[in-house]
Amino acid sequence: MPPRYTNLVQSLPATVPFVGPETQERDRGAPFAARLGANESVFGPSPKVLEAMRTADAEIWKYGDSTSHDLRHALAAHYGVAPGNIVVGEGIDGLLGYLVRLVVEPGDRVVTSAGAYPTFNYHVVGHGGVLEMLPFREDREDLPALVARATEVGAKLVYLANPDNPMGSYWRGEEIAAALDGLGPDTLMVLDEAYAEFAPEDAMAPVEIEDDRVIRMRTFSKAYGMAGARVGYAMGAAEVIRAFEKIRNHFGMNRSAQVGALAALQDQDWLAQVLADVATARAEITRIAAANGLNALPSATNFVTVDCGGTGDLARAVVKALGARGVFVRMPFVAPEDRCIRISCGRAEDLAVLETELPGALAEARAAV
Amino acid sequence: MPPRYTNLVQSLPATVPFVGPETQERDRGAPFAARLGANESVFGPSPKVLEAMRTADAEIWKYGDSTSHDLRHALAAHYGVAPGNIVVGEGIDGLLGYLVRLVVEPGDRVVTSAGAYPTFNYHVVGHGGVLEMLPFREDREDLPALVARATEVGAKLVYLANPDNPMGSYWRGEEIAAALDGLGPDTLMVLDEAYAEFAPEDAMAPVEIEDDRVIRMRTFSKAYGMAGARVGYAMGAAEVIRAFEKIRNHFGMNRSAQVGALAALQDQDWLAQVLADVATARAEITRIAAANGLNALPSATNFVTVDCGGTGDLARAVVKALGARGVFVRMPFVAPEDRCIRISCGRAEDLAVLETELPGALAEARAAV
Repeated sequence: MPPRYTNLVQSLPATVPFVGPETQERDRGAPFAARLGANESVFGPSPKVLEAMRTADAEIWKYGDSTSHDLRHALAAHYGVAPGNIVVGEGIDGLLGYLVRLVVEPGDRVVTSAGAYPTFNYHVVGHGGVLEMLPFREDREDLPALVARATEVGAKLVYLANPDNPMGSYWRGEEIAAALDGLGPDTLMVLDEAYAEFAPEDAMAPVEIEDDRVIRMRTFSKAYGMAGARVGYAMGAAEVIRAFEKIRNHFGMNRSAQVGALAALQDQDWLAQVLADVATARAEITRIAAANGLNALPSATNFVTVDCGGTGDLARAVVKALGARGVFVRMPFVAPEDRCIRISCGRAEDLAVLETELPGALAEARAAV
Repeated sequence: MPPRYTNLVQSLPATVPFVGPETQERDRGAPFAARLGANESVFGPSPKVLEAMRTADAEIWKYGDSTSHDLRHALAAHYGVAPGNIVVGEGIDGLLGYLVRLVVEPGDRVVTSAGAYPTFNYHVVGHGGVLEMLPFREDREDLPALVARATEVGAKLVYLANPDNPMGSYWRGEEIAAALDGLGPDTLMVLDEAYAEFAPEDAMAPVEIEDDRVIRMRTFSKAYGMAGARVGYAMGAAEVIRAFEKIRNHFGMNRSAQVGALAALQDQDWLAQVLADVATARAEITRIAAANGLNALPSATNFVTVDCGGTGDLARAVVKALGARGVFVRMPFVAPEDRCIRISCGRAEDLAVLETELPGALAEARAAV
């Protein structure tokens, strides 16, 4: 007789937020030639990160530091906040899970955008929250509408990715800070800044660290090139950060990842080089898109969202045709954003594969729909 | 205004399961000379693991495989079960958290032993479960009483570590298999086999993999020397394992840790060497204890629990005095097991430090209580 799962668990579908590229590679029976679908940093981490992890690996028999002390203190110094304003966790994915668990009870409302980060939705549904999903507006998350709706329904959380994934757009930080004043007392804003390092300076919201209306999520997965290490952090009011101590997996961090993230933070020269490489790649993807008659949207991230000029069916066909040609990309989930495909920035050799394969993929897709 | 935490979260204390050695080192202002308190494998992982992780680190910019496909399939082959009988997770700690979340609703009963694994208790309390804790009996978890009590109260889970931590004792597998027949239909047995590799062969419960009355937890943290990598796995009926897909953090695994664990599994020669080293260390700790007039308990694990021959206060004073002398050990939490200290197996040089420091620590402790 199977276990008596909770009522909530019984109601959940056995879904995954999305299918990973390794699964797709196994399904197609061959590796991708260009891995440009998960907004990873093909440019990799700093060599100093690799060196630090290799050294740390010799101590992999030890559990990691349960408080991520050194990394947390270095982050605090980096941002000019207190160590108590930061909690390190197993990627933003893990931290979003903890945050949802802290505040969402079955039936609680949570507001986000239709087509925004599916793993956040997965956690909300997994804890019994009721999602309200508002449409994007002009290829941006609709900040005023999100705040208004969250306040109207007394949502526990309102999610805003800034810059946004999958459209690469952003709100100016001042606009976000002003919007907080419209939030009702029941609502905490989750400000997912996974792509913060790539964004213009004016995209960062000027909010006091002890402002408990918002919690910011950051990561070493994107600009620092450490997606596989699983190191993220949340920043916010000390009282909010302290709450994570009640439920987080205290010994959940990989020891070498902690050390590697610290080395990454300390190599800001590498970060600057990556940002320059990403800027070059954004221009290159835009050029390749234009050469194929497609319009690339402006991007404040390490990916470029390209309008395929047709329906979602066309874009889906393009993603499929590119995949069959060894180019892994993804695309927005819902209309009208799903007229686009989303291409992560890559090195010259990655984008050369894209340039070679895109015309054929487009032709095949247009013939198929 | 702080967020509206769930009622459950508001009721939780901001406790941690236990304090890590790094925190203790910062508090004392010096590193430990012998790290023998967390049942880590001082012998380290196979050199092939380090080599595999170093190679994998070059791809740390990629997210890990969300299905841990290669590791899961290798484990399945190793045990002669199907890949669908295994879920890989962020250490047993992470998997216990998922399991509790799958079955425990606020108010549900869970049965364990007083002084058994605190992180399991942390997860149960964190999900609103009501713990019933039964005493150890003759330095073993009281299997018949645990099963009887779980059945009596309709517990959702009953926890048994076999071999046991912190006493190092074990039940024969046949006894465990027979005990399952006494379990009520509401109860799933969590069989924590973190120390399985160190145990006599007859300690492994001969239960069919599709027997859904039990789920087994295993890890690369102990015998394989990879505690800092955070790789554990649960084995059980495919239907039970499948339930984890509804809630687990699908992209939560460190990529290099996945690769390293696979290399660890493939180097059974290294494992055999570690088991031999552990056996040597157990004998050596027993000898050192006897030389100090102390009785070492038999151990089926990579640690030896040593009876200090007095009260819990005495043992706590010994742990403290050893710590002040640079020897990190831990001890059972509750009486009468807390008459003991728990010493992890170490290399000759680690145990030499123990041998040097134990007499002074004992004298100091005896003078203090």
